[in-house]
Amino acid sequence: MAEKTEKMKARQPRGFADRSADDIRAVEKMMGKIREVYELYGFEPVDQPMIEYTDALGKFLPDQDRPNEGVFSFQDDDEQWLSLRYDLTAPLARYVAENYERLPKPYRSYRAGWVFRNEKPGPGRFRQFMQFDADTVGTPGVAADAEMAMMMADVMEALGIKRGDYVIRVNNRKVLDGVLEAIGLGGDDNAGRRLTVLRAIDKLDKFGPEGVKLLLGKGRWDGGKEGEGDFTKGAGLDDEQIARVTSWLSYRPDFNEPDVAFHTLAILKNTAMGNATATAGIDELELISSLIEAAGYSDRVYIDPSVVRGLEYYTGPVYEAELLAEIPNDDGQIVRFGSVGGGGRYDGLVSRFRGEPVPATGFSIGVSRLMTALKNLGKLDTSDVIAPVVVLVMDRDTESLGRYQKMVSALRQAGIRAELYLGGAGMKAQIKYADRRGSPVVVIQGGDERAKGEVQIKDLIEGARQAAAIAGHAEYKEARPGQITVAEADLVAEVRKILDAQAEERGRGQ
Amino acid sequence: MAEKTEKMKARQPRGFADRSADDIRAVEKMMGKIREVYELYGFEPVDQPMIEYTDALGKFLPDQDRPNEGVFSFQDDDEQWLSLRYDLTAPLARYVAENYERLPKPYRSYRAGWVFRNEKPGPGRFRQFMQFDADTVGTPGVAADAEMAMMMADVMEALGIKRGDYVIRVNNRKVLDGVLEAIGLGGDDNAGRRLTVLRAIDKLDKFGPEGVKLLLGKGRWDGGKEGEGDFTKGAGLDDEQIARVTSWLSYRPDFNEPDVAFHTLAILKNTAMGNATATAGIDELELISSLIEAAGYSDRVYIDPSVVRGLEYYTGPVYEAELLAEIPNDDGQIVRFGSVGGGGRYDGLVSRFRGEPVPATGFSIGVSRLMTALKNLGKLDTSDVIAPVVVLVMDRDTESLGRYQKMVSALRQAGIRAELYLGGAGMKAQIKYADRRGSPVVVIQGGDERAKGEVQIKDLIEGARQAAAIAGHAEYKEARPGQITVAEADLVAEVRKILDAQAEERGRGQ
Repeated sequence: MAEKTEKMKARQPRGFADRSADDIRAVEKMMGKIREVYELYGFEPVDQPMIEYTDALGKFLPDQDRPNEGVFSFQDDDEQWLSLRYDLTAPLARYVAENYERLPKPYRSYRAGWVFRNEKPGPGRFRQFMQFDADTVGTPGVAADAEMAMMMADVMEALGIKRGDYVIRVNNRKVLDGVLEAIGLGGDDNAGRRLTVLRAIDKLDKFGPEGVKLLLGKGRWDGGKEGEGDFTKGAGLDDEQIARVTSWLSYRPDFNEPDVAFHTLAILKNTAMGNATATAGIDELELISSLIEAAGYSDRVYIDPSVVRGLEYYTGPVYEAELLAEIPNDDGQIVRFGSVGGGGRYDGLVSRFRGEPVPATGFSIGVSRLMTALKNLGKLDTSDVIAPVVVLVMDRDTESLGRYQKMVSALRQAGIRAELYLGGAGMKAQIKYADRRGSPVVVIQGGDERAKGEVQIKDLIEGARQAAAIAGHAEYKEARPGQITVAEADLVAEVRKILDAQAEERGRGQ
Repeated sequence: MAEKTEKMKARQPRGFADRSADDIRAVEKMMGKIREVYELYGFEPVDQPMIEYTDALGKFLPDQDRPNEGVFSFQDDDEQWLSLRYDLTAPLARYVAENYERLPKPYRSYRAGWVFRNEKPGPGRFRQFMQFDADTVGTPGVAADAEMAMMMADVMEALGIKRGDYVIRVNNRKVLDGVLEAIGLGGDDNAGRRLTVLRAIDKLDKFGPEGVKLLLGKGRWDGGKEGEGDFTKGAGLDDEQIARVTSWLSYRPDFNEPDVAFHTLAILKNTAMGNATATAGIDELELISSLIEAAGYSDRVYIDPSVVRGLEYYTGPVYEAELLAEIPNDDGQIVRFGSVGGGGRYDGLVSRFRGEPVPATGFSIGVSRLMTALKNLGKLDTSDVIAPVVVLVMDRDTESLGRYQKMVSALRQAGIRAELYLGGAGMKAQIKYADRRGSPVVVIQGGDERAKGEVQIKDLIEGARQAAAIAGHAEYKEARPGQITVAEADLVAEVRKILDAQAEERGRGQ
């Protein structure tokens, strides 16, 4: 089609990635288990399209100052602005508002889907990624928030993550909001500064207490010293204000301590200094704590004042699932894996459309991130997927092709993955192809075999072992014959025998 | 948050739709079965993101004359143009070109995903919809096309569609291309007119032979008569040219006729009138026909000259799966359902990037359309999904809430979908909520029961039947007690008994 000289470069925009067979299978497996937990809790699937009116999504993105920055947007032919969703929550809010009357309330729903962020990509930071959310809309009671935290714990355990290898941490935005109110940062005029404070605290794990204090004050140099790296402007709080906001910062709750909830609540009360909003938030945390205790989840779910979540729209309890397991990061360092999902109460999102209060709470799991963690922990084995048997094409006349095609059909009808080699190469290259596919077995029928009504079956696993032994001059005891010749009528049964023997061997190896 | 007066309207852009629980479950079920067939044929999952460089997608959209019309596009911050994919084939071509060296060839892969068309939406015509594709890249042999056609047949049968209720129709673009060449429509200058011809023929099912002839000539009025409705400009062929292009048009192959392939090929040969391109296409069809015969698929797959497929990028064999079942359409009329998927050979798509020939063939299933058909045929029953048991909240003190929470946990641990009622309503409204959810059972524990260590279990299915009988003054024989009181310790076992009885009853009803 195109001339060689003017051929196009095959390339992807930054921040987008293809997914391999192994990743797709691992995600499917993982999502199946998560779905089971959501279903068990009485949640129902519902989903929304990827494109919404820009104004319906609101301007609730993290790391964003200007409206709609960070979002992919374009104009429709009637000049209205459309955007790709940046999360699954804003479209759900639109959906619930639009279908409010006919939905059962509280409305429990779940959905998985791709979301888009028009942001600077980085290692492990994509512009398209998948989330798997669960939400309860229509109840103000924090029992719904407590349930969310417990469901996240159940999700972790359903995925095979041991108790103690993960925690669910809970906090309440009202506490921070109240403190900010108390130090004079209340009101609409200060919304921007409050957001800066929020995001500063959200960086505690990344930059430590001193880094957070810099971000609350004048600002912080990325390189650590003045003039080194990029400068992030701070919230501009004075020392006294910073001290108030961070009074809890040196306290990190130890969830193994029996009275940890009591201690944490005492520290928060001290921080609140009687502010009504903050106190209401602490009362809610106290109730959540009791419910968690009563349900027997206090060894997995606990209150931690450092959890704030970066999104602007949260109005009450916020919660986060953290993997404590130590896993190699992108640079090969062994680090605590960290957050794999979280959420909180967003009482304002549906209300925007309804003009009446519609309280809601929910969480989001970062699918790729969690999948990476599980793979590292060896919890997502996809080696049970067997590559197809390849029937080689030795003769290309229509009659022979038809005969090969029938063998392939017979194998498939017996539930065995199988394919006819469809390329143009010779026998050696065909076996190489089968090797590259990871095929367990190839089937060969040349003119001689055809005349005798026979086929050859080559066991590639055994063959590879044999080849490795010869190459290494090792002693070699054949577990199975590397190749057998059988009657064409016995093809399926003989292939089945070899596959079963290979499976049995894999089982022994594990 | 927002004032009542300035609340936003919750609305969706035209051509986008939310999906219900039932549709999501039906699609999951259907896709699972399709996936099994693809896997059985040795295809591996791989997928690409939704956003690509606009130029990588090419300008291969149907119903489009100007480049990039019909596609959602936007500029990246480096001013390069990005687009949402309009199909899964163009991104796959980019992927294969980018990873060519390391992929086994022929490369068999499959993928499901959302695609976007920036077109005028209509009934059943959305701007975001899901496709489920399979492709073989790297082989010029039409054995690959024959396999695709047979795999489509296997997909139909795996979905429970009976042989005879569907057909797979095969044609070859080379035949039409050759005929157009012969009547002077060859060369790059005539690409636009060739596309108009293609799309005219693609409308045969919709407008009939006379409509197609109008579209090949001066044009066609939507209303049927001059001046009525919109006018579609035609390809501008003269009568003789039209006669050449449509010489096969009065022939519709009857796939029940034993020699149908022979007859169809004869008619095509007559149409080709010795043109080399057309003749090469007919030879390929002849080979496909033999392979299909040899594999025993000739009662499902046959050659039909009316299949052209609307996409510009096909270069050889094209194929289409059609449901012959008669199903009510959107207007309630009983009509033949028609195409649910199709594809063809696209030898130019990967080559654009490689500057060397990379032949490829594949097909696409329209997921929502096929799901609608299967639902209408009663082949996608999702009634095995049972709504959750609802544990009512009679007392709201923390201790009681904790106790209810434990009941819910116990049910879930036994694998029973269950939820705690999380709203603020009284007992009646809670039962109404459970009814609305379709719950099989509610669990009630007030102060009296709590004191005695008991719970009440209400069978909502039996209850509804009882209520209906009373309302209809019908004789009523209770199948099960509508409500029982049991020891709290026996909750799970007793709920299980009721669910089993309900399941047994559903089984009998079917």
